[in-house]
Amino acid sequence: MQYKAEIHVTLKRTVNDPQGLAIRGGLHSLGYDGVETVRAGKFIEVWLAAESAEEAQRLADEMSDQLLANPVIEDYTVVVTPRSPSQGELPKAEGVPRP
Amino acid sequence: MQYKAEIHVTLKRTVNDPQGLAIRGGLHSLGYDGVETVRAGKFIEVWLAAESAEEAQRLADEMSDQLLANPVIEDYTVVVTPRSPSQGELPKAEGVPRP
Repeated sequence: MQYKAEIHVTLKRTVNDPQGLAIRGGLHSLGYDGVETVRAGKFIEVWLAAESAEEAQRLADEMSDQLLANPVIEDYTVVVTPRSPSQGELPKAEGVPRP
Repeated sequence: MQYKAEIHVTLKRTVNDPQGLAIRGGLHSLGYDGVETVRAGKFIEVWLAAESAEEAQRLADEMSDQLLANPVIEDYTVVVTPRSPSQGELPKAEGVPRP
């Protein structure tokens, strides 16, 4: 069975976020004075084969701990959904040829 | 009124994703053979002041077009939610002191 894991990796609240500060600075320069705080994180989509949704969730959690996030400074959340045929062709990391 | 905009920036499907390929390679090296595709993107949280949810949505869309995403190769989605007092203190990009 095919599953898709959507993984958000964000810096812990106690950790300085220079990328977020730079984005906020850029937005202020563009005139967006209402912007108070910006936090920047990663969004990783993993398509994987697993025997059940629980197994897919366990695998994605393990991957996040081992490779995708640095648990010392980052938090992560994993949401697993079954990949239904209606979602169409699997995207390729290589990109697909333009029509 | 305070709003939080959650912005996902992902590469268009037609665009090569070297970071996703590298992550997939790393996961395969760790033994996660069930991983078929990985796509890497950005997750940006923006806390901003606006007069209404519609205004916050419009501002966040504009920011994404102008600074956060490169519309030539990236897609973005924006979800705006009101920031309720129960969500507690606003995180600081500078990080907060450890207790």
